[in-house]
Amino acid sequence: MNSSSKVKAIEWKNNSLFLLDQRKLPNTEVYIECLTIDDAIEAIKTMVVRGAPAIGITAAYATVIGIKYHHNKLKELPDNSAYCIKKAVHADLARLADARPTAVNLMWAVEKMHTAFLTEPMSDDHLAYLTGLAIAIHEQDILDNIKMGELACELMAEVNSAPFSVLTHCNAGSLATGGYGTALGVIRSAWKHQLIDLVYADETRPWLQGSRLTAWELAYDSIPVCLNSDGASGWLLANKNIKWIIVGADRIAENGDVANKIGTYNLAVLARYHNVKMMVVAPTNTIDMKLASGDEIVIEMREGSELTTILDQKIAPEGVKSINPVFDITPSSLIDVIVTEKGLVTNPNSEKMNNLFV
Amino acid sequence: MNSSSKVKAIEWKNNSLFLLDQRKLPNTEVYIECLTIDDAIEAIKTMVVRGAPAIGITAAYATVIGIKYHHNKLKELPDNSAYCIKKAVHADLARLADARPTAVNLMWAVEKMHTAFLTEPMSDDHLAYLTGLAIAIHEQDILDNIKMGELACELMAEVNSAPFSVLTHCNAGSLATGGYGTALGVIRSAWKHQLIDLVYADETRPWLQGSRLTAWELAYDSIPVCLNSDGASGWLLANKNIKWIIVGADRIAENGDVANKIGTYNLAVLARYHNVKMMVVAPTNTIDMKLASGDEIVIEMREGSELTTILDQKIAPEGVKSINPVFDITPSSLIDVIVTEKGLVTNPNSEKMNNLFV
Repeated sequence: MNSSSKVKAIEWKNNSLFLLDQRKLPNTEVYIECLTIDDAIEAIKTMVVRGAPAIGITAAYATVIGIKYHHNKLKELPDNSAYCIKKAVHADLARLADARPTAVNLMWAVEKMHTAFLTEPMSDDHLAYLTGLAIAIHEQDILDNIKMGELACELMAEVNSAPFSVLTHCNAGSLATGGYGTALGVIRSAWKHQLIDLVYADETRPWLQGSRLTAWELAYDSIPVCLNSDGASGWLLANKNIKWIIVGADRIAENGDVANKIGTYNLAVLARYHNVKMMVVAPTNTIDMKLASGDEIVIEMREGSELTTILDQKIAPEGVKSINPVFDITPSSLIDVIVTEKGLVTNPNSEKMNNLFV
Repeated sequence: MNSSSKVKAIEWKNNSLFLLDQRKLPNTEVYIECLTIDDAIEAIKTMVVRGAPAIGITAAYATVIGIKYHHNKLKELPDNSAYCIKKAVHADLARLADARPTAVNLMWAVEKMHTAFLTEPMSDDHLAYLTGLAIAIHEQDILDNIKMGELACELMAEVNSAPFSVLTHCNAGSLATGGYGTALGVIRSAWKHQLIDLVYADETRPWLQGSRLTAWELAYDSIPVCLNSDGASGWLLANKNIKWIIVGADRIAENGDVANKIGTYNLAVLARYHNVKMMVVAPTNTIDMKLASGDEIVIEMREGSELTTILDQKIAPEGVKSINPVFDITPSSLIDVIVTEKGLVTNPNSEKMNNLFV
């Protein structure tokens, strides 16, 4: 695909799953092979792979690996043990769905694969079908990302005179998705259409997705990027030609409230104060229509060591107390547009979100 | 002084200046002796010592060291070279005043010492007088800080039911001042008066003054502190019992606009959105009445390496472009109160700021 990124976080080759170890970027590019479903669960937990859509795709492939293991075991067992494979797969998938709490794509992919698994008795053909389904989820994600990029660019071209700058937070790029990006997919398309001249990237503490991943990914694809501290975003909005803040999402509620990387909410408040537009880019499988509002979204709290050490070196006093929520909730009232593959939702609310699924 | 902090950033002992090397905190407590005015200039430039009032006090002592050097030289020279010492001191002090651009206390202290130096011909007695003046500047800073702590606590006790929490940014503590603190001085007093139960400390990228210095300093004085990423401030304001954001200042303009550590402006916008009060604590020597507004304040831009490396390790791709303003401007319209040793300025504006100096 011509417009796609050269960066690949997830590769499925010869029926094996390979994940680019994002903990080691930008210094080292190394892939980890997941031989078991537990390898994949561990990779999700420890953030070898991160980003809601990428976690979902990884989970789809991990499901295939898990089912294949039990299918091979089943072949060695008597016929009447069919019930056992369902139970074993169910237990595996429950652990997989539990690997991280906030991204709904994980649950979406696991449920989709689980439902497909249950449609037929297990066989080699069914396994091949499930493998094809995981690959299709992966490919559809890329196509959806490209579609969202085009939709968002049409909107920005209408509203703003080019060229302008944009600011992004965390990494919602190729690395966070099947291979094009949600927020960075829009940015990729906007660069191609010569709408933008520069991308400001929040470094995004504590995990530094901005400096380690976004700066690396954009430089890799030759898109001009300028790194800044998270605290400098207000100064940038006040002093630079930034027209849009463009971010991804980990979960979106029925009313349009958005859970995304910690610091997104700060940006949304700052954007409104500066009359800068706030765009959230996410495929519809990031939307959780079962949740009435952002209040119901579980916010993952991670280890304080992410704040008190960097690269295993201490940067805070021994034993200091800390609080490390890694997502926050941006109320839909602060969001100008949610971009999905099914269309744009401007000034999102429950009614408009429901219309997406009609 | 009973209520003072145990932490000392600046010590004047046996006519020598010792600076706690804040670059090495919290892992190592080591003092650097400044033998020449250039040692002190280097220490200010490289942030061995930082914080507007501490830089001012360091500059006062550095002036004494510089003058003493020329005075000793002069003793070896014929009488008519009195003009030369004035020129030499003038040149030294110009370099000293130039060491960092944003904090006005530096210029204030240098000018004060320079003016005093010029009042009399140089002599051992005059040197002793100038030394006493530097010590008085240092001691007065501590007294002013304690006074500001009391004034701010009276206000908070009036407005809020105790106990509540506060959030601070950067380090405006003992380490940034003569030995009590501006923002952390208020926090120290508020803890003593049992007004607050917890201090949230922004880690304050890029230099990590929050994790390295504020967390260390508060823990040192047994005040409960909880570290958070800068991006988590909005989430904290929305979810925790935070009633005040309390920060210091590097320069305040005649209209009440405040230059302070990058990220302060973000907090002010967030505070207003959450109906949390914004307090700036600074002695009047931080106020620069020659500047009509914050637009005229020079913002220091520091090396991108502060963003792309931590503890000499790379955290961003090679050669990435970055922008690193280390201060920002908070307009007075977003500040609820400026606390000075001469009194409180609520909802600051030009008229009220001018009244401080009547």
